Amino acid sequence: MNKPPISDRHHVVVVGGGFGGLQCIKSLKSANVRITLIDQRNHHLFQPLLYQAATTILAPSEIAWPLRHLFRDRADVTTIMAQVVGVETGACRVYLAGGESVAYDTLVLATGARHSYFGNDGWEAHAPGLKTLEDATAIRRKILSAFEIAEKSDDPEVQRQHMTFVIIGAGPTGVELAGIIAELAHRILPREFRKIDTRNARVLLVEAGPKLLSAYPDTLSAYAKAAVSKLGVEIMLDQPVTRCHADGIDMGGDRIPCKTVIWAAGVQASAAAEWIDVDCDRVGRALVNPDLTAAEHLNVFVIGDTAAVTDKSGNPVPGIAPAAKQMGRYVATVIRQRLMGLTLPGPFRYRHAGSLATLGRRAAIADFGRLKMKGPIAWWVWGIAHIFFLIGARSRIAVAWSWFWSFVTGQNSARIITVTEKDH
Amino acid sequence: MNKPPISDRHHVVVVGGGFGGLQCIKSLKSANVRITLIDQRNHHLFQPLLYQAATTILAPSEIAWPLRHLFRDRADVTTIMAQVVGVETGACRVYLAGGESVAYDTLVLATGARHSYFGNDGWEAHAPGLKTLEDATAIRRKILSAFEIAEKSDDPEVQRQHMTFVIIGAGPTGVELAGIIAELAHRILPREFRKIDTRNARVLLVEAGPKLLSAYPDTLSAYAKAAVSKLGVEIMLDQPVTRCHADGIDMGGDRIPCKTVIWAAGVQASAAAEWIDVDCDRVGRALVNPDLTAAEHLNVFVIGDTAAVTDKSGNPVPGIAPAAKQMGRYVATVIRQRLMGLTLPGPFRYRHAGSLATLGRRAAIADFGRLKMKGPIAWWVWGIAHIFFLIGARSRIAVAWSWFWSFVTGQNSARIITVTEKDH
Repeated sequence: MNKPPISDRHHVVVVGGGFGGLQCIKSLKSANVRITLIDQRNHHLFQPLLYQAATTILAPSEIAWPLRHLFRDRADVTTIMAQVVGVETGACRVYLAGGESVAYDTLVLATGARHSYFGNDGWEAHAPGLKTLEDATAIRRKILSAFEIAEKSDDPEVQRQHMTFVIIGAGPTGVELAGIIAELAHRILPREFRKIDTRNARVLLVEAGPKLLSAYPDTLSAYAKAAVSKLGVEIMLDQPVTRCHADGIDMGGDRIPCKTVIWAAGVQASAAAEWIDVDCDRVGRALVNPDLTAAEHLNVFVIGDTAAVTDKSGNPVPGIAPAAKQMGRYVATVIRQRLMGLTLPGPFRYRHAGSLATLGRRAAIADFGRLKMKGPIAWWVWGIAHIFFLIGARSRIAVAWSWFWSFVTGQNSARIITVTEKDH
Repeated sequence: MNKPPISDRHHVVVVGGGFGGLQCIKSLKSANVRITLIDQRNHHLFQPLLYQAATTILAPSEIAWPLRHLFRDRADVTTIMAQVVGVETGACRVYLAGGESVAYDTLVLATGARHSYFGNDGWEAHAPGLKTLEDATAIRRKILSAFEIAEKSDDPEVQRQHMTFVIIGAGPTGVELAGIIAELAHRILPREFRKIDTRNARVLLVEAGPKLLSAYPDTLSAYAKAAVSKLGVEIMLDQPVTRCHADGIDMGGDRIPCKTVIWAAGVQASAAAEWIDVDCDRVGRALVNPDLTAAEHLNVFVIGDTAAVTDKSGNPVPGIAPAAKQMGRYVATVIRQRLMGLTLPGPFRYRHAGSLATLGRRAAIADFGRLKMKGPIAWWVWGIAHIFFLIGARSRIAVAWSWFWSFVTGQNSARIITVTEKDH
């Protein structure tokens, strides 16, 4: 049987080149479709290591890959760098900023999430979150500049404010950031400053709930608490932040004066549910059918962090890379089976492989259900797993090399402050 | 003899952490002085490889090092990240933006140069130059985005405009940029785009004078012309640009419609001469005495690209790293001899070691006086020399690895577009 030319094939449009979108395209290899990938960035980002780019351990190009380079050998994949502004499900068209539009036969929305300030959007200017490479560069600039300003100042109050770092939210990102910033201040930078002692820097991890890493079992959570405390992080539990402003944060009547606040407390799904006008949960994730289609739109799938999916026990599927990949793979199977007129797979089932989080540069915790690990061994498991999941030999070698160098010399390599045009 | 405590020592203030300033501080090691290094950036930049960061071959952190990290073991060196706004030679004080000031016993101004538009400052918005890491990131973003816009468009005129790249100025930077951009368009990107053929991109090298690389002997200049032409660069000599604007460049009555223009045509010294109120040449470089002091200010030295110095034949010393380093080393010697009451060295004498320029990723030209080289052998000489001059084992290995990877796979590694806050 001759295949039709690519231009006549069933057209799958994938919006978003994150873990879900990428996996869906990979799993559609050799399917009888043509694929258009639309993303507002030119790169896929390995978000699980983004906190390391924000804290001077890795360089941005070590954790990001140009999307069109990833699919250079797939003649069936076209990549468009553009921002999607809406979807017309009746006409089966995706609209781009600038007025262009793209027609689809099947649409896969994999547009992820951004951080959320629970309605206090004004806090963002004072407490940036961490979702993009630009966020990482901005946070790195903020952390490194704070020490520079403290060194230049003669005012102890100014020094104290700039040497206080607050991380809001003690989930994996918050704990990982706090651990690395504490190590930076207490172990890496002290020899380089003459006036200030960077070991006097305070790193505060502020959490509204009663424990760190609430998704982990109590033993691992308690271990994590002890481990990051030992690195010099001050942990403040049951402390909901009531305001972020230019001079610090407020928790009820208490104020912590500080100049660097990082937001790791909540996420908000992208606007995908709005585009297709379906119901969403309270963080904006589209409610989907058991096969990940959305409401009555049988040719529109929503996957990854922007879909509200539950596992077989009724718990929400976590917003992590393996979950997004499983959804991408599942949707690719549904599309294939439909086109071939074969029996469809059953509803999507999430299989949780495990959870990993690092505590500084030498320890981690790992929860694989029955098998739980902590300390340096968990760190090695974490490191090997993450290097394995990086894309391409070059990145694997580069990241392994950066970690090896940091491990042996105790020095981080990506400590350059670049200014934005706004700062000029 | 007991040395006095550091705080009582003769205070040398070095402004600028480029090649000249850094070398001066290195050469003052164990001298009986204390040193304050002031720079508005937190890093030393290896400018000879900046064009590779602008053209996706190297990552920014591979060619930049935090200044305070470089001097972490030198208790006699204090680093301040601040912008200098003026000097009061009578009171021996340097003034910083923000109102602080620093007193000096000896001042070394090594503040370098920026690109210059010969009075047409409005051109900068349309034809950015290349002097800082931010410049490199901006140019990389412009080049990569141009291909993205062309791929998204259906208008052949828009595609043509975005796939025309103009480099103004055929000195080493212009020739090196043109060679790499041509290779990017003709060899690296073609497989990744579906609608446009990136091999149709035009790379124009526009020069007001009659030859490429005017500082080189005619044979090497002619070889360079043939080599970059072969890479696909169109060379336009004797073509002074009369205007840069949003839609391209004008040369007399001719207009080249294009969206990416890079300025590599001229430099302007920093404001050091103005700060100390001494005469300067037409590009703003301070006229200095034979010992590199400035006018009657015997404790103020001006070195590197911001000083107008001639060699023994009366020719101007070129604005290259080895010249700046020689001046830094010389000034360190003068300072030492003065403090020890010893005979001062004679006037500064520049020794030209040689000139090197690359032509794409596989060829170069080298002019060591009697020894002249061209082609792949010169490229290896160039590569080994530049790796040797990089700072620290980590960078040497990282850059060698990036080049090796690019050499073997034909792929460049730093192809991430990051947006600035302004673009959001």
